Amino acid sequence: MTLKKLSFNIQPLSNDLNDALKFEIDHKTKPLGSLGQLERIAYQLGRIQQSTRLKLSKPTVVLVGADHGICAQGVSPCPQELTWQQMKNFAKKGGGIGLFANLYQLDMLAIDAGVDYTFSKEDNVEDYKVRNGTRDFSVEPAMTINECLQAMQNGADIVTKLHKKGCNVIAFGEMGIGNTSPASIIMSQLCNVPLEKCVGAGSGLDNNGVLHKLNVLQNAVKKHGNFESPLQTLACYGGLEIATICGGILQAATLKMLYINDGFIITSALLVAHAMHPEVLDYTIFSHQSNEGGHKQMIAHMNGEPILNLDLRLGEGTGAAMAYPIIQGAVEMMNKMTTFAEANVTDTTKKGITVL
Amino acid sequence: MTLKKLSFNIQPLSNDLNDALKFEIDHKTKPLGSLGQLERIAYQLGRIQQSTRLKLSKPTVVLVGADHGICAQGVSPCPQELTWQQMKNFAKKGGGIGLFANLYQLDMLAIDAGVDYTFSKEDNVEDYKVRNGTRDFSVEPAMTINECLQAMQNGADIVTKLHKKGCNVIAFGEMGIGNTSPASIIMSQLCNVPLEKCVGAGSGLDNNGVLHKLNVLQNAVKKHGNFESPLQTLACYGGLEIATICGGILQAATLKMLYINDGFIITSALLVAHAMHPEVLDYTIFSHQSNEGGHKQMIAHMNGEPILNLDLRLGEGTGAAMAYPIIQGAVEMMNKMTTFAEANVTDTTKKGITVL
Repeated sequence: MTLKKLSFNIQPLSNDLNDALKFEIDHKTKPLGSLGQLERIAYQLGRIQQSTRLKLSKPTVVLVGADHGICAQGVSPCPQELTWQQMKNFAKKGGGIGLFANLYQLDMLAIDAGVDYTFSKEDNVEDYKVRNGTRDFSVEPAMTINECLQAMQNGADIVTKLHKKGCNVIAFGEMGIGNTSPASIIMSQLCNVPLEKCVGAGSGLDNNGVLHKLNVLQNAVKKHGNFESPLQTLACYGGLEIATICGGILQAATLKMLYINDGFIITSALLVAHAMHPEVLDYTIFSHQSNEGGHKQMIAHMNGEPILNLDLRLGEGTGAAMAYPIIQGAVEMMNKMTTFAEANVTDTTKKGITVL
Repeated sequence: MTLKKLSFNIQPLSNDLNDALKFEIDHKTKPLGSLGQLERIAYQLGRIQQSTRLKLSKPTVVLVGADHGICAQGVSPCPQELTWQQMKNFAKKGGGIGLFANLYQLDMLAIDAGVDYTFSKEDNVEDYKVRNGTRDFSVEPAMTINECLQAMQNGADIVTKLHKKGCNVIAFGEMGIGNTSPASIIMSQLCNVPLEKCVGAGSGLDNNGVLHKLNVLQNAVKKHGNFESPLQTLACYGGLEIATICGGILQAATLKMLYINDGFIITSALLVAHAMHPEVLDYTIFSHQSNEGGHKQMIAHMNGEPILNLDLRLGEGTGAAMAYPIIQGAVEMMNKMTTFAEANVTDTTKKGITVL
């Protein structure tokens, strides 16, 4: 398989409805611009859906898990068994994301993209395994190009299936002990930032641990180099969950779905998607800025405006889930907020007045 | 009536359960501290309710409206009729807050604290009117001390009623054309900040309008002076909705309810409550930081950590409503998130590991 065969035809957003959307938003019974970021979300979703009436349908969080060969180098203080344990937990709607998905009424799906464990049918973790974890990239590339493309294709397939069932808004969560290591290298190469700024102390390792991790990653990059091609970066240093999610994001944009971006690891997948197809951002909402060191800079690289800043660093798509009620608020404002005329309230816009 | 008669007995939070709450939060299946602000909210609510199992019951947004004599000086570009028009609109669950209260499942109540209009019974706006708007404080004090105390007493009565019906979490919204003027003076006197830093360009007035407003407020302060007593500041320069809300906040804390703070105007009421009884902050969650100039500084004065930063400046309690799902998330985490033991997941806290 080649990337040419795996193609994503992402349309930049049409400007046809821009004026109508702006008019609609400006004539609601509120001071001009006073709903801030909600107005920007409504405008973006209106452009995506090409309608002044918006719809969120079957919102879904896709939890993608995989293991990482680089863990052999002691880059994570956690035992790898946590990956499969937590995937089982998520599939039973446990953990953080199970809880928040339930509270905010999001569907949830657990996907094995490359966990080093054999799930049973009862585990309810869907099988999209490319291999039992990536290779140790301190020794050899984490994935072959074909494995990486296969994972991306899997992600695209998962999203296509959801879309066929009527889903038009999607987020991804991830589980993979050690996956801040691939995410840090992806950030470094795609944002052109030295590795030491991508390996956060926020990772909870002690100082020695962070230094060791940085050293491992720097040596790996010395060995394999910086790549021009985002696909090569992803294959050499990435994770199977990251590649799967990257393909999923690109397919979501291809299908004109709204994509809600989550934390540090997920954003590394978006960075790759963005490097391949910058138009993917037209379909992206940044849910939150985590307190994992590099996340802020990744988001700035893509000019993102995160909705929440809650000091989260749980992953699992929890930030995306928590932002969902705000996105619902934006849709509600657009679809149901009365205009000045409907509410029999003096239209302040007619007087050039911008606030109540 | 005197303030002595209108007394608020606000208990500082007990420390009895602090360790148990911390233990409970730390042993959920998540890296230590990784739910950031949600963990802090859960901890605070646990201390308020003195339980490791939390409850949000009949959450209510109380919309309080009043008119302002200072409008005679042209401090607002909006016609005063908007106050009563919007109060009617809110009582019918219209406007921004009606929409968001419905979406986030909050009860709503519209209160006339001093609107210059006679509502009919059908309008469904509850009558707690002290007078038809405040006096023009460029000429004479906005309220007498007794009027101000009456408004505070009304706010306390409203909250007591709700509490008796089982409500344990409350927010206030406000409607009152011209009420950034009283809020700015309150901020200036209680935060000890020059008036020019309290009158925001964010108010939507053009430059001349802002200068005129500042001039009106500065002259009023020259006339009546700075007061040592927050009650005197509130009476001389405040609004009837601000005084009513101030009494409501103090009573909510007295009754150990959770209070969700909103934007600029509401925060001016909290500043007065805080100056009278600093312990009120133990019961307060700051929902959002608006883009109204002085709001950030008001919040900083009380060491608040706003949950949302969405560029809102609609008022009406909409920021508080939007933060509610996050507070629900904190409660959900506390009540339902599995512990490592319950989920059969390796307990990372036992290994001194702080992240997955």
